[in-house]
Amino acid sequence: MADEKKLTPRGEDFAAWYNEVVLRAELADYSPVRGSMVIRPWGYGIWENMQRALDDMFKATGHENAYFPLLIPMSFIEREQEHVEGFAPELAVVTRAGGKELEEPLVIRPTSETIIYSMYAKWVQSWRDLPVLLNQWANVMRWEMRTRLFLRTSEFLWQEGHTAHATGEEAERETLLILGIYRRFMEEWMAMPPITGLKSNSEKFAGAVRSYACEALMQDNKALQAGTSHFLGQNFSRQFDLKFQSEAGQEEYAWNTSWGVSTRLVGGLVMTHGDDAGIVVPPRLAPLQVVIVPILKGDDTAAAVKAKAAEVADRLRELGLRARVDDRDNVSPGSKYYEWERKGVPMRVEIGPRDLAEGKLALARRLVPEGAKRKEFVAEGEAVAGMPERLEAFQAELLQAALRRRDEHSYRGVKSVDEVKEILDGPGGFVFTGWNGDPAVEQTMKDACKATSRVVASEEFRSETPPERCVSGDGPSQMEVVWARAY
Amino acid sequence: MADEKKLTPRGEDFAAWYNEVVLRAELADYSPVRGSMVIRPWGYGIWENMQRALDDMFKATGHENAYFPLLIPMSFIEREQEHVEGFAPELAVVTRAGGKELEEPLVIRPTSETIIYSMYAKWVQSWRDLPVLLNQWANVMRWEMRTRLFLRTSEFLWQEGHTAHATGEEAERETLLILGIYRRFMEEWMAMPPITGLKSNSEKFAGAVRSYACEALMQDNKALQAGTSHFLGQNFSRQFDLKFQSEAGQEEYAWNTSWGVSTRLVGGLVMTHGDDAGIVVPPRLAPLQVVIVPILKGDDTAAAVKAKAAEVADRLRELGLRARVDDRDNVSPGSKYYEWERKGVPMRVEIGPRDLAEGKLALARRLVPEGAKRKEFVAEGEAVAGMPERLEAFQAELLQAALRRRDEHSYRGVKSVDEVKEILDGPGGFVFTGWNGDPAVEQTMKDACKATSRVVASEEFRSETPPERCVSGDGPSQMEVVWARAY
Repeated sequence: MADEKKLTPRGEDFAAWYNEVVLRAELADYSPVRGSMVIRPWGYGIWENMQRALDDMFKATGHENAYFPLLIPMSFIEREQEHVEGFAPELAVVTRAGGKELEEPLVIRPTSETIIYSMYAKWVQSWRDLPVLLNQWANVMRWEMRTRLFLRTSEFLWQEGHTAHATGEEAERETLLILGIYRRFMEEWMAMPPITGLKSNSEKFAGAVRSYACEALMQDNKALQAGTSHFLGQNFSRQFDLKFQSEAGQEEYAWNTSWGVSTRLVGGLVMTHGDDAGIVVPPRLAPLQVVIVPILKGDDTAAAVKAKAAEVADRLRELGLRARVDDRDNVSPGSKYYEWERKGVPMRVEIGPRDLAEGKLALARRLVPEGAKRKEFVAEGEAVAGMPERLEAFQAELLQAALRRRDEHSYRGVKSVDEVKEILDGPGGFVFTGWNGDPAVEQTMKDACKATSRVVASEEFRSETPPERCVSGDGPSQMEVVWARAY
Repeated sequence: MADEKKLTPRGEDFAAWYNEVVLRAELADYSPVRGSMVIRPWGYGIWENMQRALDDMFKATGHENAYFPLLIPMSFIEREQEHVEGFAPELAVVTRAGGKELEEPLVIRPTSETIIYSMYAKWVQSWRDLPVLLNQWANVMRWEMRTRLFLRTSEFLWQEGHTAHATGEEAERETLLILGIYRRFMEEWMAMPPITGLKSNSEKFAGAVRSYACEALMQDNKALQAGTSHFLGQNFSRQFDLKFQSEAGQEEYAWNTSWGVSTRLVGGLVMTHGDDAGIVVPPRLAPLQVVIVPILKGDDTAAAVKAKAAEVADRLRELGLRARVDDRDNVSPGSKYYEWERKGVPMRVEIGPRDLAEGKLALARRLVPEGAKRKEFVAEGEAVAGMPERLEAFQAELLQAALRRRDEHSYRGVKSVDEVKEILDGPGGFVFTGWNGDPAVEQTMKDACKATSRVVASEEFRSETPPERCVSGDGPSQMEVVWARAY
């Protein structure tokens, strides 16, 4: 039965709204295992569509999928110094298996660099074996004390790409290629336009030389790190003896990259487009793009209305759309509307006896543009044939709205820590400032503003006029950095 | 570089052949973690195609995907008595996480009935919430002492469906629906025709009321359990309090089913179609269906040959086929032939200067029908346009060959344990006999013949003349059972 209790409004308590909407849109649920969640079919359907789109993009750029073991010997994790320091506190450890104590404990992968590069060392002998361009779709485990559905859970699903190259330049190009793919995916599929850039040393991946990230701005004007791409240099290849004979006949260490996005993206989607009625799923990712609700009057028109609903669904599916009739007998049309709005289906089609008589369909978009009517009555043929275009327009509007929101909450030319604090205590958003590169400034920012450096902005996100001074007042700016409070 | 050392012939040592071909076709590799393997891109590509086909079949019958936690509280596993007895010896146990000893140990799922039905209990209140028809694609862990690539590893990938129904009849129908889907998938996609039937009590799933299985016959005439579908009755719903209010207003326990196939299927594929040159992948599952090898003579025809190869690949892809040019400069055409034969690509196209001049392509099938020529020279247009049909014919021939082999090694009307032993010590295969249903006969068969009861044959696999007596000589037959040595 549809549960029509209203959600806590976003403006009142964004965090409460988020949890409620994730549960009540049936994206996910809490499990009896602390820190682990259950991804329900509606949430998993969105993730499947994300996977399909990303997987196609990875394959189009020469990557292949593979699968590596879940369990990693503790000694592997310990081999790269920064890596173990970063991950040790979060490890889940298997000490007993098959009824016996294990000689060496095994950890559930928090990420797979160590096990994967140990295999590459076995497969790669010569420059002819390079590059190796693999990705895996997998579950990983990072023991978390404070968890939030999708955003931070002990177990999560992700993809992790791991590549090996003959030169550092090629590996760096790969890192940026993937950063670009992530950005494009977030824009074109999620309608969640991120800014991109380099992570500071204190924020980079444990074991990387350089980490790049996509950072998206949520509706509460906090940043979400939505995807990362790491240039690992030779840090792991040295530890795992991943060597090759170069074309010139010399023995060299390979150069690695790793990169990932996770089910956290589903949380980002919710916080980018949702409203007080529920979530809004961009049409390209919606498991169901068009829901058709027949309005039955209990008279002799019912059979004809049902038949028309089924016919419209068939014709929409023939156009390649994901459409179906909600023909539940024991739920009222009004309850169906609430339920599908809460679940964020982009378009609803209503068919009643009068529509049937007039040869029209009533179309209701999940979000109604300002000034537009809630429902449009459109001649049936035109409604069906024009549906792909309407959905694409809806997708484009979501992106435009998110871009506008991001731009409105990007503050440039900010010159002091006080000013940053004022913005973040007020409306919040991305604050662009100069930085001298000193980690002490990051600490100041944490203490004074509860903010972290999100990225050193990539070229396309830098301000037209570069900042001259560091935001700390201490010396000239070396780079333009973006500060925000973050998830 | 292609490794052209010959494989151990199947006739000499089937087990050695299997391991070699899995490694050298680059389907999988051993990992540094005992009992866990690495699935390499070629093996994973086959698994991805299997997933896609099965997933479509599940969705077409109303199932949806979801995801449940990897870790299960030990107390959950212990709740169903038979279940814990079956799985306890194989559990991998997390005792430490986030730097602390856990209060309650968590096990890595060996299968997910317990965690999943505990969630269903939360979601299901009324008959209106039923049926619940979910599937998950996941990794599971069963600690194994003696492992074999794909066939028996501690960690493996699988899908596990879990459903809840209002009546036992409906759940039983679901169990058989899925058994039929598995059978159809194995026939139509894998060209690996199984026999189906009911497992005996001693062979059924720990916690099931009845287990049904697909059993396929490998080339060494041993049986492979390739998929199982379980009717769980109310065993789990009682333990996890999965109750609902019936339409009549009464509180009742739901009826469950669970069912799964795993990456073991890849091993089955290898042992069904492989030959002494490598594996053979049925076209519908092949990650690459047509490989195009340009024959370059190092003269001025090279550019034209390369261009033609690329053009042919494009046109095959336009027909929806998975085709690509192997344009590696540092590998000879002969080495490429060996490599792609070992990897089982169904069709090879060769293009050299003479073919180009004559407007023909040389087509080489991975398996050549008896009496046919190794290569066919076919006019280019016809070769391209006819490729889908050729691949379908190849697929059909694989199924026919496997059916023929299965029938040739199915022994019916067998009347004594000695006779069973003679067959299994000799050629081996499926041996159909009468059975009085007494587990003591199964023990006799294990001791005397190293054979297990694979299934009580489903109706369509029973002998025309039902056996009259139990194979033990002890009383009349109650059912027709199939014995085999098994993986």
